[in-house]
Amino acid sequence: MSDKIFSYQQLHSFTLNVFLKMGCCNEDATLATHVLLMADIRGIDSHGIARLVGYVRLWEAGRINATPNIKIIHETPSTAVVDGDKGLGLVVAPRAMQIAIDKAKQVGTGWVSVKNSNHFGIAGYHAMMALSQDMIGMAMTNASALVAPTYAAEKMLGTNPIAVAVPAGKEAPFVADFATTTAANGKLEIAQRKNESIPTGWAQDAEGNPSNDAHILKQGGALLPLGSEKELGSHKGYALGSIVDIFSAVLSGASFGPWVPPFPAYVPMPENMPGEGLGHFLGAMRIDAFRPAADFKSNMDLWLHIFRNAKPANGHEKVYVAGDIERTMEEERMKKGIPLGNEVVTDLMQLADKFALTL
Amino acid sequence: MSDKIFSYQQLHSFTLNVFLKMGCCNEDATLATHVLLMADIRGIDSHGIARLVGYVRLWEAGRINATPNIKIIHETPSTAVVDGDKGLGLVVAPRAMQIAIDKAKQVGTGWVSVKNSNHFGIAGYHAMMALSQDMIGMAMTNASALVAPTYAAEKMLGTNPIAVAVPAGKEAPFVADFATTTAANGKLEIAQRKNESIPTGWAQDAEGNPSNDAHILKQGGALLPLGSEKELGSHKGYALGSIVDIFSAVLSGASFGPWVPPFPAYVPMPENMPGEGLGHFLGAMRIDAFRPAADFKSNMDLWLHIFRNAKPANGHEKVYVAGDIERTMEEERMKKGIPLGNEVVTDLMQLADKFALTL
Repeated sequence: MSDKIFSYQQLHSFTLNVFLKMGCCNEDATLATHVLLMADIRGIDSHGIARLVGYVRLWEAGRINATPNIKIIHETPSTAVVDGDKGLGLVVAPRAMQIAIDKAKQVGTGWVSVKNSNHFGIAGYHAMMALSQDMIGMAMTNASALVAPTYAAEKMLGTNPIAVAVPAGKEAPFVADFATTTAANGKLEIAQRKNESIPTGWAQDAEGNPSNDAHILKQGGALLPLGSEKELGSHKGYALGSIVDIFSAVLSGASFGPWVPPFPAYVPMPENMPGEGLGHFLGAMRIDAFRPAADFKSNMDLWLHIFRNAKPANGHEKVYVAGDIERTMEEERMKKGIPLGNEVVTDLMQLADKFALTL
Repeated sequence: MSDKIFSYQQLHSFTLNVFLKMGCCNEDATLATHVLLMADIRGIDSHGIARLVGYVRLWEAGRINATPNIKIIHETPSTAVVDGDKGLGLVVAPRAMQIAIDKAKQVGTGWVSVKNSNHFGIAGYHAMMALSQDMIGMAMTNASALVAPTYAAEKMLGTNPIAVAVPAGKEAPFVADFATTTAANGKLEIAQRKNESIPTGWAQDAEGNPSNDAHILKQGGALLPLGSEKELGSHKGYALGSIVDIFSAVLSGASFGPWVPPFPAYVPMPENMPGEGLGHFLGAMRIDAFRPAADFKSNMDLWLHIFRNAKPANGHEKVYVAGDIERTMEEERMKKGIPLGNEVVTDLMQLADKFALTL
């Protein structure tokens, strides 16, 4: 039952070949591979190669277009709406982010809302594209409904993540990337596999009562917004998830709320969808559109330094800044390889069979 | 000990006169009054007229300039940095928001980072300025350090609120306005006055252990980021508070982290401040910079309708959208008046004496 270790190169070569077999052009397959595996490298295992078989199934079901015509359908100097043409979110989102970056070069900031897309991997990848340009990057996406609003018994929102990447000088950058829920669905899946209960505050049952059952979502339950309950601020997590849904989908014309298309291809599409596909929202702000880049970086270095060196609480050794743990994981996994669980390896072996590839 | 009820007009006239006595010009005094009292009208009592005496004390201490020269010190087509010249945040922030709105009219969006300001009232006021322009509005501000990062025993961030206002068609708009902490400091102050303990998850002691003592901040304790503890996602609330600090202050050149100037005038200013005053960040996005306003509003109406009519959880009657409770309060208080506690009335009577005014 122990994990197997794969090198990045092994997984890269295999994933690239799968996307090529799906009919992606070389450029798109390379980009999609890079985005997808960034999750595995940074330790967000639920969003990486574990989902490769899911993308293939969506393609087989005709819900993903391997040769999309990704295009701007409306724009101003600082904004655009992109139609992803049902392309892989792994390809659509970085293309849209590049448009945001290009607009920021021209007028200081760029903001792109995307429709007709699907799962885009980790939000952090797209936000981090801005770093090498001396820009702050932002990325969000809506997702199929798993989360109940505060006081509600219904699943109305996805885990709707937000990522913000901020460049610095000598210090490593600030990279926040988080679901707007108390816990991501991947954490429930881990508890399910181990047959463990989940902490109070992660989920509720079909009536809206607190639940410690890791399987409760299959019985009509829901994840809870960041904050867990009203007294601890869950209406704030609910507001954040709402903002992600509105910016990603109501601004672009994608589907929203309970109508966001599901990731598993066996789940039927929602009826009466008010928009097209999943939505994303991507932004880039040039730091020198506000103040000289050297001044910003010098202050940002100081900011990062004092937070990384804050006095730890009882029982802790260190205070982290957003992205520190993922960056350490990235360094480790690029050296030592990426561990994959048995279920993931089995899925990949089936893909290898299907496409006559070797893992 | 019961509250006294005042009409909006009474409080408006008194507050306006106090700002005039401080030396504000008529236009600034009127604007500051409007912004300040919007908190009382919407039920965010901690941020309204209860703070008037605090502003006066900051002015007496020379930390607020009643006749500021508010100016743009750097700009691009979609961005600006504004120097608030130590003016009332109640005046500086709406001026900066107007600049964001004007830029959005020109190039689709406008983003303004502000330095050298101070407390700006409720973030929601500034975000809501965008609504009548068919724009999405955003407002954030940093604040003096009361909050410990996840795993830290030190106060490093303010309650750093975020507001986002989204226009709609027939439905009432979406208006989120929340501190990035589990509970705002005002909630601890209420518990202090009632001599009650506070729920687990709101605060910690000087060593970083959970605390139920409403007075713990005076003993070296700290508020907790939204999420309360790591297992429930406090690193996400910590990231949100960090983003507000960076956008408001590192982008503008304001002071940040533990160096943000305190609101109480008797607290000494921090030493070695890395920037000038408090910072804000304001944004405006024209909805028709993304898609036709009518299409957006029609989808937004549907979004609001389904969330307002979601199935309630056990024990609840209704699901709310961000801003619904404040809007109901606004309607009620404009009709029935605004209740003020004895301590606030005593403060106002002292101001009346000081400036030879009648309440």
